[in-house]
Parts: sequence; C-alpha cells; structure tokens
Amino acid sequence: MRYLITFSYDGSKYQGYQTQEHGKTVQDEIEKALKKIAGNKDISIHASGRTDAGVHALNQKAHFDLENEIEVERLKHSLNGLLPKDIYIKRVETVKNSFHARFDVRAKEYIYELNMGEYNPIQKDYVCQWNKRLDVVEIERALKYLEGTHDFRSFTKKGNDDCVRKLVQTNLIRDLKDVNHITLVFVGTGFLRYQVRNMVGTLIEIGEGKRKSADIMDILEAKDRTQAGITAPSCGLYLKDVYYN
Amino acid sequence: MRYLITFSYDGSKYQGYQTQEHGKTVQDEIEKALKKIAGNKDISIHASGRTDAGVHALNQKAHFDLENEIEVERLKHSLNGLLPKDIYIKRVETVKNSFHARFDVRAKEYIYELNMGEYNPIQKDYVCQWNKRLDVVEIERALKYLEGTHDFRSFTKKGNDDCVRKLVQTNLIRDLKDVNHITLVFVGTGFLRYQVRNMVGTLIEIGEGKRKSADIMDILEAKDRTQAGITAPSCGLYLKDVYYN
Repeated sequence: MRYLITFSYDGSKYQGYQTQEHGKTVQDEIEKALKKIAGNKDISIHASGRTDAGVHALNQKAHFDLENEIEVERLKHSLNGLLPKDIYIKRVETVKNSFHARFDVRAKEYIYELNMGEYNPIQKDYVCQWNKRLDVVEIERALKYLEGTHDFRSFTKKGNDDCVRKLVQTNLIRDLKDVNHITLVFVGTGFLRYQVRNMVGTLIEIGEGKRKSADIMDILEAKDRTQAGITAPSCGLYLKDVYYN
Repeated sequence: MRYLITFSYDGSKYQGYQTQEHGKTVQDEIEKALKKIAGNKDISIHASGRTDAGVHALNQKAHFDLENEIEVERLKHSLNGLLPKDIYIKRVETVKNSFHARFDVRAKEYIYELNMGEYNPIQKDYVCQWNKRLDVVEIERALKYLEGTHDFRSFTKKGNDDCVRKLVQTNLIRDLKDVNHITLVFVGTGFLRYQVRNMVGTLIEIGEGKRKSADIMDILEAKDRTQAGITAPSCGLYLKDVYYN
C-alpha cells in the first residue's frame, strides 16, 4: 500500500531534509518512526525534493510503501506520537502505486520571509534579518523579469546540465501590520539547487540600489553564477506547497 | 552614570530572566557582557521584573550604573556584539540616578499568543498550541470581568501578601490572515507571579465551554488558587512593554 504524507518542519535544528553521512535530518526522523510502526522493517520515504539545512517546510510531501494497510488517521496519529516536536504530519492519504512524490510534481511554491526593520531575536531562525530598508517597488519590478521560462544557470551552483526552468508566478506580499516585513513568493515547475536563495540574494542587492531591476535580464543571459548576487540565508526560506496533477 | 536599556529576547533557551543557582539566564548573559565592557568589573542590572523560563520579551527594561560614561550608541553596539543572538539591546539611554527600572514602573503590558488551529512545529516555542477551536466571544466577555482593581489571589501561587492589582486594559486581537490565531493583551499596574498564565489558562477553559465568562466573578471572590483554571504554557507569553512616568 502506497501512502502520501503532507508534513511541516522547523528546519533550524536539522542538517536539511535528506539523509546524509553526518548530522540530524528530517528524512531520518520520519524513517525511524516508520520503522517502529512497520515492526522494525526499514521503510524508505521519497519526498518531493530536498530542502537545505535551516530551510523550513509548511507542506512538504513524501510517499512510502507499507506491506500492511493502516487506517490513515491512525497512521498520522502514530507517526506524530513518535516524531520529535519540530516535525508534524498534517495529512496521510493512500495513493495509487504508480504515484511518485518527486517525479509527479507539477509545481512547487516557496516563500521567503524578510525583515527590513530592527533585528528581532525571537525570529532569528525563522526570518531573514536584513535590518535595512529596501526599495520594495524595485524588487517587485525585478521579480517580473524573473518570471517565465529561462535558463537559470546564473542562479545555481555550477555543474548542472539542464538549467531551464519555468517560474510560473512571483509575488511580493506586504505585511499590513509591519511595514518592515515582506514575503517573496515563487511558484515554479521546478527549482535548481540554491535557486530561490540566489534569486533572493540578487533581489536584496537590487533593493539596496546596488543593481537595477532590469539587470536581471543580463544576469539570466550571462548563464554565469558570478554575475548574480549573494546566496540569501536559509532561515527565511519555506517550502510552502507542492502541487500534483 | 545610570543607563536604561530596552531589550528583547527569545526566552525558549533560558531558565527565565533572573539569575538563579542553575541554568542559563538572560540577566547573567547581559551582566557577563557588561563586565567585559566595564574592564572586568562586576555590574549588576536591575530589570522591571523577572520573566519565567520560556517566556519571551519584546521590550524588557533594566537599569545599571557605569563609572565611566560611554556614548549610548556605542554602548548598544558593544553589548550586541558580546551578547548571544537570542538577546538584543534595542535602545540605551541615560537616566537620572534616582530612576529605578523596577520601582518606577507605572504599568506593564503582556501579550499571549494562542493557536487554535492545527499544530505548527515552526511556532512550537513561540505560540501556545492549543489546537482546538475556542469560543472567542465568550473569552472576550470574560476578559471584561477581569478588568479593574481586584484581589487576584486566585490567579497566583500561594504565599503572596498583597494580591490587589489593577488590570487597566485587556484586549483580544483576531489575526486577519489566520482565523485560528488570537492574541490576548493585558495591561496592568503590576502582575503577580504566574498571574497572566493562570488568567489565560482560565480563559481557555471558558473558551472550551467548561466554565462561563461570569464565573470569573466567583473565582476572584474566592481568593483561592484551586478555583481558577490551569497555568497556560510559558511559550505563548511575551512581556511586550514596560511603562514609566
């Protein structure tokens, strides 16, 4: 029986989503819990994709197979009982055996939280503390240049083969209660490693006046990582949603 | 020279504000930083009051004396350079030698953050995760019964002498973007130990329908801790402001 889980996590205490040689990962924690539920049998989970160290998720998705059928509400409850308090299973559903949580992704949505006001220690792991007023209108203009199908090679680390991706929609949301807080939204059919953080780093430099919004066109054209801006800190980034057909 | 500092902190990693025999405290961290600035001389700081383990502060206040005058912006910068990232000095100002950060308090404002929706692992240390829909209108009614000058003995731990305090103003703020999130506001001339958390715990029971809003009158009248509700978790509580004349 194949199950699809929707889960959220606080990435600040993890070395990223995906299992690796050293350090605590979200995948390890969920597989450890599933092993207990499956009577000490190893269960592999397949997520929509990885998130890097410090990055959070609001609705990450993963699938796995269990030999015995377990009622979905009971499985959700058992998993949450075994998992640490910084990972939470929001939904468990059964899916066809042909479904794959990574290969079937139609689009993903990331958001990036940015504080342009005074440093806030309470949000240090949850919001990028830029602590400087940025030109928000110029950032909005730059976002529009990023939208569409482009070769995003300038916004990822070297070595990727095919860097053409489609950024379906972007948005800049102002916080009605806090003029210094903005949320950047990116919906795309797929994202390259560090792509969102490198786009945000470049947008920050545009907001600071170091670059112009129209420079995005040249940066995309260059297909050269050194032409884009810094990599924005991981703590502001959230995988918000994963969409399937 | 007497200085007044305004500071914020993430209380989740501290055993409370005030120095104690065991565990990390906010006061210790600030006094350690001041000692370095004062050339290895011990400096005692006097805050507006303590906050318990896990409670946060947005604008806590404290005063201290330094033999040498240091320009306030430079002192703020030095302190923030020495302090851990979960404590932040927002302002340093000089005050008269007769000023006392505790004795001169005119009023304090606490807020309490409550999530009535699904558990959110990202806010586990910053919002009380009640995860059940409460009767918000009945809580609002109950808040009005708490306002005014009362003997709050039922809402504090045993052993206090004088429990008469004035709750100047209360408020319930709905989150426009999240129907499941509410903020409770309490402004008072002074608060007893655990008073806010015991009031919130009682308000939660009222919101659950276990008690009626008008029961607040009987609870106040009883002057007996066992008549009030549970102590709400510390993670939802923030010292928001301290007011002086």
